[in-house]
Amino acid sequence: MKPYLILNQLPKIKNQKNSLLIFDSILLKQASLKNWIGQFSIQYAVRSGESLKNIENLPVHLKSILKLQQKNQITFSNIYVMGGGSVGDFGGFVASILKRGLPVVQIPTTWLAALDSAHGGKTALNVDGFKNQVGTFHYPQQILIVREVLETQPKIRLKEAAGEFLKTALLGGPSLFHKLSAWDWEQGQVKWTDLKSFIDVKYSVIKKDPFEKKGHRHVLNLGHTMGHVWEGAQGIPHGMAIYYGLLFDLAWSTRLGILSSKTASQIMGQGPWENLFDMKTDQLLFKLNEKKLVGALLQDKKNFKNGLRYIFIKKPGQTVIKTVKLQDILKEFRRQKKILENFSYEEL
Amino acid sequence: MKPYLILNQLPKIKNQKNSLLIFDSILLKQASLKNWIGQFSIQYAVRSGESLKNIENLPVHLKSILKLQQKNQITFSNIYVMGGGSVGDFGGFVASILKRGLPVVQIPTTWLAALDSAHGGKTALNVDGFKNQVGTFHYPQQILIVREVLETQPKIRLKEAAGEFLKTALLGGPSLFHKLSAWDWEQGQVKWTDLKSFIDVKYSVIKKDPFEKKGHRHVLNLGHTMGHVWEGAQGIPHGMAIYYGLLFDLAWSTRLGILSSKTASQIMGQGPWENLFDMKTDQLLFKLNEKKLVGALLQDKKNFKNGLRYIFIKKPGQTVIKTVKLQDILKEFRRQKKILENFSYEEL
Repeated sequence: MKPYLILNQLPKIKNQKNSLLIFDSILLKQASLKNWIGQFSIQYAVRSGESLKNIENLPVHLKSILKLQQKNQITFSNIYVMGGGSVGDFGGFVASILKRGLPVVQIPTTWLAALDSAHGGKTALNVDGFKNQVGTFHYPQQILIVREVLETQPKIRLKEAAGEFLKTALLGGPSLFHKLSAWDWEQGQVKWTDLKSFIDVKYSVIKKDPFEKKGHRHVLNLGHTMGHVWEGAQGIPHGMAIYYGLLFDLAWSTRLGILSSKTASQIMGQGPWENLFDMKTDQLLFKLNEKKLVGALLQDKKNFKNGLRYIFIKKPGQTVIKTVKLQDILKEFRRQKKILENFSYEEL
Repeated sequence: MKPYLILNQLPKIKNQKNSLLIFDSILLKQASLKNWIGQFSIQYAVRSGESLKNIENLPVHLKSILKLQQKNQITFSNIYVMGGGSVGDFGGFVASILKRGLPVVQIPTTWLAALDSAHGGKTALNVDGFKNQVGTFHYPQQILIVREVLETQPKIRLKEAAGEFLKTALLGGPSLFHKLSAWDWEQGQVKWTDLKSFIDVKYSVIKKDPFEKKGHRHVLNLGHTMGHVWEGAQGIPHGMAIYYGLLFDLAWSTRLGILSSKTASQIMGQGPWENLFDMKTDQLLFKLNEKKLVGALLQDKKNFKNGLRYIFIKKPGQTVIKTVKLQDILKEFRRQKKILENFSYEEL
């Protein structure tokens, strides 16, 4: 079976009697989706967002889900999960621990989930406000990438996925940049036939290391070290945080001479990158106090004692991994902060 | 690596700096165990029992465990779990979801865990009072069966494991019965060199089906259908409940003519079986009201709609699987209840 299918329409579900559908309640606002959801006799609606992933809420969710089983006098034989990243992470985790692992079909409803989080087998919950501290590897039986679903999302969702699209292009190589620059980012329009080439970048990495045992998947963290800090400390959407994390990494790679200034400006000059978000955000992000920064870096899943394997960019399609210390990140943060402050003063 | 090691003494632990030890706090009462536990710089003591396995308590445990990581500025690279069945199930589950699966070393401290629950890769938690509703498959890197640990347990623990030992003998064949009958059940004494032959019965089954995908492991449920009912509804220890579940299955197998009366009396005539527990318990168990019985059977992880694949005994070493309905179990329960009532009246 192929790991994912690209479809124009939602498929009819056969034998849904013993299936559970976990879905984002907001989808009921779309008549066509509401209809499709209606074919499931056992449904569990959730509110998407980080609080869904909070481990504190897991016991109540599991009780409710098991009550559905009791009430219908069945045992679930598989689970459908329909929603964005938080719903996918939550539903995937639940599927992975019910009956020690039920087959799951993921139907991502945001660009971010369709491009990234639905693929790669990871499920995750948050503990004490720290992201993805617990989770499992539980590959979906199938991932359905469905045009009628994805094209109904609010246009802002594409910008919110910008970071992961940019990361994918940086890992995948120059041809992907050309594709991205042709999309209408303000209107949230993706060229549908381009999508597969982006998704396949992730598969080319994870197929070498499906359970993250060998280190190959590490490159997928490009832009994520500072990205996670900003996402956690300033509460900006994941894909936007990763976008800024990538800008940070591009600037750092350039300063270290790993990336040439010429290539750096070529990267930023292509597509929508430079004017994608409000300039004020940059300033806000660098106002993060250093104690918080260090705390967030230490909380990230990496072990800083022996240094962190940091991913730098040499050119699109080529990364360089170097071991850095916590202090190195802090120094680079200060340097970029200073440049930005000076730059902003000129602008005002 | 061998799945389990039989040792006389607890081994010295190398590189414990990034290891977490989860252990039953009661073990600190034994000076030798306390000493050994003391080598770990990061320890998490728990109280054993079903409340440890309650999903409601999981968030607090995870928070505390992750705080230990923060406080020591490390990330755990592996987990040691030392305790009986509940501690093993809990610790194994925690290990399976931290960093999407950390290697775990299990050190069972009860006969029940050493014989059964520490082997086979299953971890489990309870939801809403229903046992093992969630869990994972997470095989330990190593299981240490340690004489100095197991021989310090209260003597009652051997009787509490009686059901799983009897089940193992029923699955393994006649030679195991002879071994069991030579042990001192009142004094809780196991012949140490016999232990391996019992443990290996489980491995001969699970090696054919390590993740319970093919149905081979189903025979390990011998005695567990009614056993689980009594364990849940009347709160008797697992191994004791399974003992009574097996008596139920032996009687049912005999009535159906699957097991000959002669073999049935040979089984019960060997070893300690007939007089292991107080006769009053039998009566108590059959006082279970039928509504509770049906509720518990439906809650068990099986799907009754298409009938239940029930394991009957033909002779030691040979089982027969037949599909039964909920109503069949209920009828057999009534039949055995009546016999027991009549039998008891005569005795009084």
